[in-house]
Amino acid sequence: MAERIRIGIVGHGNLGRGVEAAVARNPDMQLAGIYTRRPPGQIAPRDAETPVHEMAALPAHTDRIDVLVLCGGSKEDLPRQGPELTALFNTVDSFDTHARIPEYFAAVDASATAARRTALISAGWDPGMFSINRVLGEALLPDGATYTFWGDGLSQGHSDAIRKVPGVAGAVQYTRPVKEAVDRVRGGSRPRLTAREKHRRECFVVLADGADPEQVRDAIVTMPHYFDEYDTTVNFITAEELARDHHAMMHGGFVIRSGNTSDENTQVIEYGLKLDSNPEFTSSVLVAYARAVYRLSAMGQHGAFTVLDVAPGLLSPKSAAQLRAEQL
Amino acid sequence: MAERIRIGIVGHGNLGRGVEAAVARNPDMQLAGIYTRRPPGQIAPRDAETPVHEMAALPAHTDRIDVLVLCGGSKEDLPRQGPELTALFNTVDSFDTHARIPEYFAAVDASATAARRTALISAGWDPGMFSINRVLGEALLPDGATYTFWGDGLSQGHSDAIRKVPGVAGAVQYTRPVKEAVDRVRGGSRPRLTAREKHRRECFVVLADGADPEQVRDAIVTMPHYFDEYDTTVNFITAEELARDHHAMMHGGFVIRSGNTSDENTQVIEYGLKLDSNPEFTSSVLVAYARAVYRLSAMGQHGAFTVLDVAPGLLSPKSAAQLRAEQL
Repeated sequence: MAERIRIGIVGHGNLGRGVEAAVARNPDMQLAGIYTRRPPGQIAPRDAETPVHEMAALPAHTDRIDVLVLCGGSKEDLPRQGPELTALFNTVDSFDTHARIPEYFAAVDASATAARRTALISAGWDPGMFSINRVLGEALLPDGATYTFWGDGLSQGHSDAIRKVPGVAGAVQYTRPVKEAVDRVRGGSRPRLTAREKHRRECFVVLADGADPEQVRDAIVTMPHYFDEYDTTVNFITAEELARDHHAMMHGGFVIRSGNTSDENTQVIEYGLKLDSNPEFTSSVLVAYARAVYRLSAMGQHGAFTVLDVAPGLLSPKSAAQLRAEQL
Repeated sequence: MAERIRIGIVGHGNLGRGVEAAVARNPDMQLAGIYTRRPPGQIAPRDAETPVHEMAALPAHTDRIDVLVLCGGSKEDLPRQGPELTALFNTVDSFDTHARIPEYFAAVDASATAARRTALISAGWDPGMFSINRVLGEALLPDGATYTFWGDGLSQGHSDAIRKVPGVAGAVQYTRPVKEAVDRVRGGSRPRLTAREKHRRECFVVLADGADPEQVRDAIVTMPHYFDEYDTTVNFITAEELARDHHAMMHGGFVIRSGNTSDENTQVIEYGLKLDSNPEFTSSVLVAYARAVYRLSAMGQHGAFTVLDVAPGLLSPKSAAQLRAEQL
């Protein structure tokens, strides 16, 4: 094996670019190459030295890469790429379609186990760090309740949904936790909260020429699942304002577990993230788990794993003895 | 092995009583017995059915207990009990003398490995859950800084130190994070903070008959290490007020990691605890890790472990498949 962990990147969108940035900040890692479906000449890596290849080159590069970070989407890319590429490489991905995780896990596990490769699926912050905190919170305070709040943050899925409304030329949607609900939960009570009581949705919309604002507003706030169960505000802005004020990919949220350890005593655990860049943070999580995958693979632990299966110490470049001495 | 995990408790102080409460809230566990240095008749368990034994009975009870929770102190009890009892039982403890963890780990590891037992040391919240978050924070944001704040909370060590000052009849000390420092760290800047800038100390003191308040105050605020590096407030109260207003063992704190994933983007991770009862929460952590110890032992993983070596999923009573489907 190489002195430094050799990382390969599949896909060069926001996530792939974030992985480039993260590898540069981890001295025990190096970037072996970027693999893309686009013509490689169209890709501008952060470091001009980084080799860029077509996806088709991957099967010939198994001896150049220790862990491949899959940066494709959960809908189209990963269901096919995950099982295919874990037959050739150790992998880590951010598959985030919660409802389909069991079937995706099974497909990747079968492929990785047969090939004696190690694959970690669904890393990131939710699923990912938030999942860890949901599981730990419930284990530490079994007599309790768990709440996940998202935001303030830009939701890609909801923004896309608005953009499909007739009369909309451009849009972003921010998910915001409702302060009153957060305060009640932080106080240690265990309220039953509806979707509307937990989050509100704020939209910034650029109208197409001649579109009727009231019609557009109505189409948005009544949209099933996406908006009808929430209090939604629609603000109309210009294309210039959209470009100027709404390009940041900030996000975040928090997982709160409150519970009783006796009739008298309530305990509250809170894990929170405040992110300037949602994709860059996800990429950082992927890269830290790539280190864990590298180690699990070296230990002969093959098959599919999730963040719930990985000991925290495996994410650190430090040895277990060093962590005990310095950080326990 | 028994259908439910059989827990034994060694030592019946605040921590031992907390373990009793925690086992009662975990349906996959049962309490096999309490072991004490006091005459067993003096112990009043929460559930009158719980057997209470002398410590001397332990060696004959190895087949009654799956995991022994050691509830003694880190100064006198655990350095002797840990290595001794891991030769006979799987154990979990809350050894919290940070500087001596490496030598304690080595002693317990040697004993547990030789006896093919599993021992988890230094569980609780700090060391424990805070350690996990320090390690994860650094791994996820390598270009960053970590801050641990404690409080608001009652510090046992500092309260004890005040009680030894001549002229003091009774006392408690609260550690409080300094709000300005917390706000700066939460904002994503990475300030260098002195002890004084991070925490302040507030004391509530009952004077002995005839003691001079100014002399007592001076002796407290100038006490090396404990108080001289902090801004310390001393409030004099009556014995009645001390008993009425200051018996709660509330504590808490937070670990904040802030860092950059690129030159442009700062990310902030925060893990916080707000505890009505410090010992009961520590006990809950011990009991969740007792479940992990039980599983590690069943998997043939022997020797000493810390919270950094344990995958989150092992703490949950749910199976890995169930966790993937429900909580990832």
